[in-house]
Amino acid sequence: MTDSSLWRRLDTRFDELWPIMRSITGPGFRDSLKILQKEMPLTIESIPSGTEVFDWEIPPEWLITEARLTGPDQQVYADLDDSNLAVINYSAPVDQYLTLAELEPHLYSTPTLPEATPYVTSYYEQNWGFCLPQTVRDSLPAGEYHAKIDSEFDHDGRLNWGHCVLEGDTDAEVLLSTYLCHPSLANNELSGPLAMMALYHEINWWEDRRYTYRFVVVPETIGSLAYLRAYGDHLQEHLVAGAVLTCLGGPHEGISYKLSRDGSSLLDAVMRYMNDLSGDSSVTIRPFDVSGSDERQYCSPGFNLPVGQFARTVYGEYAEYHTSADDKSFMSISAVRESAENIASSLALLERGGKFKSIVQYGEPMMSKRQLYPTINAPDTDTREHDAKAEQSDIKIVNMMRLINFSDNQNPLVNVASKYSMQPNEFITLVDYLKKNGLINH
Amino acid sequence: MTDSSLWRRLDTRFDELWPIMRSITGPGFRDSLKILQKEMPLTIESIPSGTEVFDWEIPPEWLITEARLTGPDQQVYADLDDSNLAVINYSAPVDQYLTLAELEPHLYSTPTLPEATPYVTSYYEQNWGFCLPQTVRDSLPAGEYHAKIDSEFDHDGRLNWGHCVLEGDTDAEVLLSTYLCHPSLANNELSGPLAMMALYHEINWWEDRRYTYRFVVVPETIGSLAYLRAYGDHLQEHLVAGAVLTCLGGPHEGISYKLSRDGSSLLDAVMRYMNDLSGDSSVTIRPFDVSGSDERQYCSPGFNLPVGQFARTVYGEYAEYHTSADDKSFMSISAVRESAENIASSLALLERGGKFKSIVQYGEPMMSKRQLYPTINAPDTDTREHDAKAEQSDIKIVNMMRLINFSDNQNPLVNVASKYSMQPNEFITLVDYLKKNGLINH
Amino acid sequence: MTDSSLWRRLDTRFDELWPIMRSITGPGFRDSLKILQKEMPLTIESIPSGTEVFDWEIPPEWLITEARLTGPDQQVYADLDDSNLAVINYSAPVDQYLTLAELEPHLYSTPTLPEATPYVTSYYEQNWGFCLPQTVRDSLPAGEYHAKIDSEFDHDGRLNWGHCVLEGDTDAEVLLSTYLCHPSLANNELSGPLAMMALYHEINWWEDRRYTYRFVVVPETIGSLAYLRAYGDHLQEHLVAGAVLTCLGGPHEGISYKLSRDGSSLLDAVMRYMNDLSGDSSVTIRPFDVSGSDERQYCSPGFNLPVGQFARTVYGEYAEYHTSADDKSFMSISAVRESAENIASSLALLERGGKFKSIVQYGEPMMSKRQLYPTINAPDTDTREHDAKAEQSDIKIVNMMRLINFSDNQNPLVNVASKYSMQPNEFITLVDYLKKNGLINH
Repeated sequence: MTDSSLWRRLDTRFDELWPIMRSITGPGFRDSLKILQKEMPLTIESIPSGTEVFDWEIPPEWLITEARLTGPDQQVYADLDDSNLAVINYSAPVDQYLTLAELEPHLYSTPTLPEATPYVTSYYEQNWGFCLPQTVRDSLPAGEYHAKIDSEFDHDGRLNWGHCVLEGDTDAEVLLSTYLCHPSLANNELSGPLAMMALYHEINWWEDRRYTYRFVVVPETIGSLAYLRAYGDHLQEHLVAGAVLTCLGGPHEGISYKLSRDGSSLLDAVMRYMNDLSGDSSVTIRPFDVSGSDERQYCSPGFNLPVGQFARTVYGEYAEYHTSADDKSFMSISAVRESAENIASSLALLERGGKFKSIVQYGEPMMSKRQLYPTINAPDTDTREHDAKAEQSDIKIVNMMRLINFSDNQNPLVNVASKYSMQPNEFITLVDYLKKNGLINH
Repeated sequence: MTDSSLWRRLDTRFDELWPIMRSITGPGFRDSLKILQKEMPLTIESIPSGTEVFDWEIPPEWLITEARLTGPDQQVYADLDDSNLAVINYSAPVDQYLTLAELEPHLYSTPTLPEATPYVTSYYEQNWGFCLPQTVRDSLPAGEYHAKIDSEFDHDGRLNWGHCVLEGDTDAEVLLSTYLCHPSLANNELSGPLAMMALYHEINWWEDRRYTYRFVVVPETIGSLAYLRAYGDHLQEHLVAGAVLTCLGGPHEGISYKLSRDGSSLLDAVMRYMNDLSGDSSVTIRPFDVSGSDERQYCSPGFNLPVGQFARTVYGEYAEYHTSADDKSFMSISAVRESAENIASSLALLERGGKFKSIVQYGEPMMSKRQLYPTINAPDTDTREHDAKAEQSDIKIVNMMRLINFSDNQNPLVNVASKYSMQPNEFITLVDYLKKNGLINH
Repeated sequence: MTDSSLWRRLDTRFDELWPIMRSITGPGFRDSLKILQKEMPLTIESIPSGTEVFDWEIPPEWLITEARLTGPDQQVYADLDDSNLAVINYSAPVDQYLTLAELEPHLYSTPTLPEATPYVTSYYEQNWGFCLPQTVRDSLPAGEYHAKIDSEFDHDGRLNWGHCVLEGDTDAEVLLSTYLCHPSLANNELSGPLAMMALYHEINWWEDRRYTYRFVVVPETIGSLAYLRAYGDHLQEHLVAGAVLTCLGGPHEGISYKLSRDGSSLLDAVMRYMNDLSGDSSVTIRPFDVSGSDERQYCSPGFNLPVGQFARTVYGEYAEYHTSADDKSFMSISAVRESAENIASSLALLERGGKFKSIVQYGEPMMSKRQLYPTINAPDTDTREHDAKAEQSDIKIVNMMRLINFSDNQNPLVNVASKYSMQPNEFITLVDYLKKNGLINH
């Protein structure tokens, strides 16, 4: 990812996406998908409100135009015009005068981050409420407040998603999925779509692809459920690996990968290999668990898809999570870039890490007739050319023969690389070399 | 097992069973089964002497009325009227005058416990002999002894066993098997039947049972072989787990479980889970081995049934084993009660530890529409209700979702409980809650 | 292997084999096979030059009569008459006058062992060259040299191998394979055939054999490929285990075993058992890898045969490897003898380590009716015969019952021996005892 102009452009995309009032349905989500379309050819699809989706139902579309809490002193204490987080996402309409005591159950703040506004949602039960900083809440005067929320639920609405595919040499697929429903949140929202756009460009640049890559942008939970309703059978048939992209721009270092439910996907093996090699903490592995993002749906027992999750500064590990403090001062574009580069490196290993078949299955291939081997067997003799380079080449020949020996369509090559502690760069070089020279299949 | 009257009653059963002269066949065994019938509806069945049972043959019934060793001083040195252990169990009849030297090969004592009379048997080869304390043996005067044993082998006799079944929701079975052939021995004999009677009452009290429970009382070895001849095919078809009950009333703490031959039964998994959690030594695990009790037959290679063994103070771990010192002063009713309670706890986990199926296999179940989930997603916000209780409930929701996610009819839930270190009580509560609310099958 | 006359004879065989100018083809190889025929009934077979063998082709036969490098001072600096290593094995003919500078690319020496002549080959690409000690090379005067090699490539030639079989009770086979192509090299050449001749005698002496033993002598690499072309299907059908014999006479202690590709052969299990028991370093295990000898071909992915490798002082672990210093002063006959004895011990365990079937699958066998068990069950009682011997016998009975319990045609008995830490001698005694008494199958 040496195209630094890409990242200047994605910085602009962030600024375009940030102010849009999004939810799991509605015009904000559609407008946001259109901004993503500037970078990747997403097809936008939809499903009507009220449709049953497994155990769930697509909610009505939510439209909001105004949300304002005015105090007895006529001061405005929470206003959608000032912050997309000021109102509970999916608030029902209200136009009511209440005392402070009556208002209290409808107020949300975060005592541990007293200057921040929390992000609160109530998609599946009608509620209304305002979110505001703890400091503001503590200063609210007694008296009568005016709570005004002008919102609407459109039962003829739709829920949308976008997706696109980069075809590979095979129809075995890798899924990259992210979500786009949270308004004005950075690490736990826009970092995912930003990383996905970068990965789309990167994978599109690759000279060849063994796998077909599927990029999916949904509203969280209900969106992945809807996507599974439409494409679950296809994914069950074709998926070899996948990951949800979330929380990729925070202050932590390196990349954190959450294993798929079975812990046995090809990407799981690749990430374990990277983790084993890294020694340091630049690649960390988290076990599968039911808390998380859309992998909860992809990994529900009936689907049990080989889908993990990439993150960097993980939900639950930072105080700013789901508050207005999760903004561009917390999430940096450069951190998202590092995450995208780390994921791209993982996918490069994934491309070489699967099962291959050596063209010579019986006996070793004769390397010298292919000029791939020294023709004179004279180890350690003084040929006046012996140097460090020769030694390096010895190592490469051994690792090359190891990869050939296990190219039996049964052992994923990443396990061979891992078993023999090959460096990722050498592993990639060798697999490409073997493919290019026709010693293993494509 | 809060019914303390049960244990007063079982104490009485012990006293009724203790004085009966039992062997692997004969009226003593039948009379003992009848005492057990006061507590559990045992069906008594039999097989004729001389019947071939796999590699064995049912021996003739043994009847004994008198056994007395009288010294040259007319003193009686061993007498069946004083102790059921005074004569070799299955002794042939004898009426003979011998010198002390001639008598010696027919005498048995225990030098390491000089005051105790050993328990000696010779079921499958005709012998005769007397058992007496080492102190008595050392004091025997020279001279002529009268050895008188009035016994009989009835080739038209039978070998008996008793069994009964508590039906469950499924015909998958759990076997509890114990033996009843040793006369006047406490830890290594009556503790097993006592624990079984208590467990019968306990399991009978359960509101519902997933598994069908089979209670079997046999003479050791030849009895389990005969039972397998009659019911081996049935057990091979239905058994999911089982255990032999033996040595459950000694001075050790906690419960000791011996794994089944394959080490992969559901009860094996439950006991490993309890052992992992306990940290201390209250649940210990022993590997499978060929020394032991009737699990040797249940786990013979052709049957290879998933049968382990529960014990507390194990044979070979105490000097009083197979001597008159293994009496009620060594075995306590309260220890047997603790054992039965420990086993009941294990079986309660077994009931919840198997494979279940979530009613929602595709996607997560929607919890909020079932009022099983908070409807407003506002973590860490000040709703003026946040307290320790809420945090506890969070944990329960995560564990509930974990159990749902792995209710796929493939993963025994005990492995999920173990993987996520759930406390047994919480695990039981959650599984019952999920069943009651129809989220997983019964 | 108490027949010490055997080892005096094998010492003679060494001296007969040492001076023969061998290569992968040609009269030297055939003559060497004939010397081996004095000890084992090898059938000699062949394949014509030019035949395709998997990815390879049988090279023309190489005939050499003269190779001499004469200096400007008429001194002879390398001469086939003095050393079989003086000329590159498979050198093309040459009769040329060159300056020292022109000669240099055709000279081979070993700086790290300046007094030794290296062993250099160029089978598959035409080259010519001389090998000489570094000290000689450093003293070469300037001037014109005469390089004279009188060799010939016979395209109507053949490549040879020898093999023979010792039939066992079953047609399940154990392969022992060694190579014979290097001239005048001791540890890394003649130690293998010497050990094989000794093992042939040893296995021939055994009273009975469960497995059929196949002894194979080939030229390295191309020879095992040719053998696989002829017998690969047979080996795939019948082989249960096998090993290449190489480097068995060096100064190291004990035996080193390289696992087969899958690491799951019966011999792999036996060697792991010996390694676990030995505690010390007398049995070491090496992982499978692609560097090595003919196991590279046997373990190519299409064959994936259960073939490991026995060695003692392994290639790459000693400086004298592939030089004239690998002679009888480096390799000792007594070390080869120790190796052969170690391998024979392993094969004795292999014979007992496989899957057996107890004649009694349902229930335990009744031991007392076979007089294989005490008829009176009176543990720890004073029968005036209790001694250490009885205790020992107790242990044997338990291990005997363990072996019977797992004689289910599924568990290799070596795993049972390993699990219960049986001593190899006891294990062998018990298995033979069970077979002799008809308790398990042959």
